[in-house]
Amino acid sequence: MEFSSKLLENAVNEISQLPGIGKRTALRLALHLLRQPKEHTHNLSNALLNMVNDLKLCKSCNNISDNDLCDICANSLRKDDVICVVEDIRDVMAIENTASHKGLYHVLGGKISPMDGVGPHDLNINSLVQKVKEGKVKELIFALSPTMEGDTTNFYIYKQIKDYSIQTSTIARGISVGDELEYADEITLGRSILNRIPFESSLKL
Amino acid sequence: MEFSSKLLENAVNEISQLPGIGKRTALRLALHLLRQPKEHTHNLSNALLNMVNDLKLCKSCNNISDNDLCDICANSLRKDDVICVVEDIRDVMAIENTASHKGLYHVLGGKISPMDGVGPHDLNINSLVQKVKEGKVKELIFALSPTMEGDTTNFYIYKQIKDYSIQTSTIARGISVGDELEYADEITLGRSILNRIPFESSLKL
Ligand SMILES: [Zn+2]
Ligand SMILES: [Zn+2]
Repeated sequence: MEFSSKLLENAVNEISQLPGIGKRTALRLALHLLRQPKEHTHNLSNALLNMVNDLKLCKSCNNISDNDLCDICANSLRKDDVICVVEDIRDVMAIENTASHKGLYHVLGGKISPMDGVGPHDLNINSLVQKVKEGKVKELIFALSPTMEGDTTNFYIYKQIKDYSIQTSTIARGISVGDELEYADEITLGRSILNRIPFESSLKL
Repeated sequence: MEFSSKLLENAVNEISQLPGIGKRTALRLALHLLRQPKEHTHNLSNALLNMVNDLKLCKSCNNISDNDLCDICANSLRKDDVICVVEDIRDVMAIENTASHKGLYHVLGGKISPMDGVGPHDLNINSLVQKVKEGKVKELIFALSPTMEGDTTNFYIYKQIKDYSIQTSTIARGISVGDELEYADEITLGRSILNRIPFESSLKL
């Protein structure tokens, strides 16, 4: 691509570092910003900087948060002994949208995936096991995507907490096997939370 | 969408104002930035701000430029009396990529489109006609997209300069009628510049 402006070229190069955005799309976005009042770009830029500079992870569940404790953990109306284990904060958002879970969350930050070089120690598993050991958990709901990596992660955690007398369940397999959780429709996802089954039974399916 | 963070919500809202980017994609991009070192977002943000704050339009051709005159207009090796008329700076970039045009450009900033409320006076037409009147132009190459609006714009300009003894040509219609110029492949586009035909003959086709 031939640029007559280094300023434009830099902007296009930076935008095209974003995943799924090629040079042509980046150029379209840059030219769009140039046609808008400068204020739009100032607002975008500030929002991005404030987010990366000030955002925290909840000290309890690793959910994204503006404070030390996220709004969910800080909400005394939620059942703090029912914990839904998810890969990612997008899954928290997806499940919150269904209003089917009244407990808290624990965000692992991914799933065990040797292919991608992600082992158990790269995930927030220890802090979850610790909560169980401290007797703070009555039920763990495994809400990982029903893929091989999700199953592996569930099972890895399950092995470490199975000797503690807590309930474990997985979301009902209403979600097609192999699908990513975050793309499930709200009704299917909500139902799969309500119809969750004991983790042990899921191993026999 | 339920957000546990106002900072994330603001960023997603700002990103999703960009054309073609919905909330879900905006969230994916925001989370991507959060996983990267902060420096990436600082660089992106600076590149966008520098672009909208410092970018200029070339005083001669309206191409985007870091200086008063763009690199093309400032290049003494280019033929300054052969001017390629284009809608948009993306077309300048597309034609520059083909290396088929050794002259200068004139960027109209769009095409006449009554449906979109764009009339001749919204475009940089007067300054082009002025160049012709001042005897600075030997040939005008109309390189607008071969759509109805492109043809209307060509013809509007042609009427105003036809009494001056200059050559006018349009790019060869190797590009399918109705297609947007910027999506043409390099070879077709390059050939259509080299095989340009006198504008008058294009009226008879
Ligand atoms: Zn939390
Ligand atoms: Zn110029």
